Amino acid sequence: MSKIKTVIGIDIGGTNNVFGFVDKEGKIIYESSIPTRAYEKAELLFERLFGRINEDFKKYENEFELAGIGIGAPNANYYKGTVESPPNLSWGIINVLEIVKKYSDLPAAITNDANAAAIGEMLFGAAKGMKDFIVITLGTGLGSGIVVNGQLVYGSDGFAGELGHVIVDPNGRECGCGRKGCLETYASATGIVKTVIELLDTTDIPSELRSIDKNSITSKKISEAAKRGDKLALDAFDFTARILGLKLADSVVYTSPEAIILFGGLALAGDLILKPVKKYMEEYMLNIFKNKVKLITSSLPGGNAAVLGASALIWNELNIK
Amino acid sequence: MSKIKTVIGIDIGGTNNVFGFVDKEGKIIYESSIPTRAYEKAELLFERLFGRINEDFKKYENEFELAGIGIGAPNANYYKGTVESPPNLSWGIINVLEIVKKYSDLPAAITNDANAAAIGEMLFGAAKGMKDFIVITLGTGLGSGIVVNGQLVYGSDGFAGELGHVIVDPNGRECGCGRKGCLETYASATGIVKTVIELLDTTDIPSELRSIDKNSITSKKISEAAKRGDKLALDAFDFTARILGLKLADSVVYTSPEAIILFGGLALAGDLILKPVKKYMEEYMLNIFKNKVKLITSSLPGGNAAVLGASALIWNELNIK
Repeated sequence: MSKIKTVIGIDIGGTNNVFGFVDKEGKIIYESSIPTRAYEKAELLFERLFGRINEDFKKYENEFELAGIGIGAPNANYYKGTVESPPNLSWGIINVLEIVKKYSDLPAAITNDANAAAIGEMLFGAAKGMKDFIVITLGTGLGSGIVVNGQLVYGSDGFAGELGHVIVDPNGRECGCGRKGCLETYASATGIVKTVIELLDTTDIPSELRSIDKNSITSKKISEAAKRGDKLALDAFDFTARILGLKLADSVVYTSPEAIILFGGLALAGDLILKPVKKYMEEYMLNIFKNKVKLITSSLPGGNAAVLGASALIWNELNIK
Repeated sequence: MSKIKTVIGIDIGGTNNVFGFVDKEGKIIYESSIPTRAYEKAELLFERLFGRINEDFKKYENEFELAGIGIGAPNANYYKGTVESPPNLSWGIINVLEIVKKYSDLPAAITNDANAAAIGEMLFGAAKGMKDFIVITLGTGLGSGIVVNGQLVYGSDGFAGELGHVIVDPNGRECGCGRKGCLETYASATGIVKTVIELLDTTDIPSELRSIDKNSITSKKISEAAKRGDKLALDAFDFTARILGLKLADSVVYTSPEAIILFGGLALAGDLILKPVKKYMEEYMLNIFKNKVKLITSSLPGGNAAVLGASALIWNELNIK
């Protein structure tokens, strides 16, 4: 009997590096992780990682065979195979695909987390069967993966789809990118925390959040307060949603997506974020696109989404060839 | 000897309908036009048009053969073959490709003016050899054609690439689309005229434009005044360029184009518009894209650009098949 084809999906992160074996229907056969070590060089991380992968695959090798390796990582460049000065990792510019070659002859591909999420949604999730859609990841920052005509948009240099850095207000909040007023300084888990702190400091709106230390306010605590009807938390969601809704309406005129899929930490707030974003998106939408674009949350299972995305990346490559 | 293949390029407009025979190198073998008649139905226009085309082609039929028909028209939908409620034409929703079938069996395609311009630049103009670029047409409004990975971006419904309607300011100038503050109300031939009138009304900046009737101010007159060093005209270019530069920097984070190509009336101002737009675009550009994106003007010959674009549309289809 021939063996079932499976790929290795790897998600590189600042705390953990998760890997899994995923078949072409998106079923995770096995998943595990190794911790990231501060200041460890990329070479050593991948040596450890492939040590574990080879070890762990032994249990599966009678039934399964490996067909490829997909990697999601911050600041990854699909064209060059590199990861370039990722936040939370002391790597500088590293050619990951060249390192991987030392440990495996399998076809391999790398892209950033948001792009991997987009391909994951296309192959295994909410965007199945769609050819034009945008995935927005609302985590520490705001990432995005844009799919046009069934293909991920990489652009001339592999860095396309950085919607977290469209400018909301050139005189607005300081952004980690060195400029001011980028979308991710407002619409992200970090952004809504900033908004709440601003509202606490500048208004008298009553809020249960006034009783906790400002440094311990998180988007999760804001969501919980909002669910209990906390006025200030709800105002913060409304403020965030207006800005995100406007910029999503802008995004629609670029690529006319069938759907926009929200993903990541802040998307877990569900209707608390979806409903007001939808309202403002439609309010700011150009007539010809009104009530056409679905706004939905990811349908990839939360804990495994990153590994599914990374696996989808390489399945997508293998399908094309 | 076999005949040289040529296509019919047609540009539908509110005043004139220009057509031409164009070979696959973008050489215009013949070009002419028929006037648009107010309130004439689309069927009758195409009857007249194909009457003239068939008549005029007789001189060329020994040497050339026709291979296809490309049409550029306002509010055209590539997928559906329709033109939907075009400004300056009393057509409603018309299926142009179905009408064309009555007069010709040749393969035919239609798209809007800005998309045709983009394919024209890709096959015959400034974007030759590029796979990722954006064409911005600065005429009465602001149109755009986005090319990603060598393909025009049509999106889920054929209406992608309406960058004239990204929102600069939700409380800004009234736009023809019914919303407020769209980019084209600032960055277009009409937009800069509005800016000059606002500056004339609200400032004491000296200007030769104060001596002409406000209703007769055009973008051309503003360009001429600016070239003579007119302070107010130069301020209007600076104001326009800041807004356009910011929104082009935003556009870059979507598709990471190799170049942005300015086209149409206001682009004829050359360095007067290019230099300040470039300055502001770089000022607002995300670090990873700084000094990477070329900002250039169209290299299609002005008078023929629309016919070349329409021809390029069908040549592009014929090349793919």
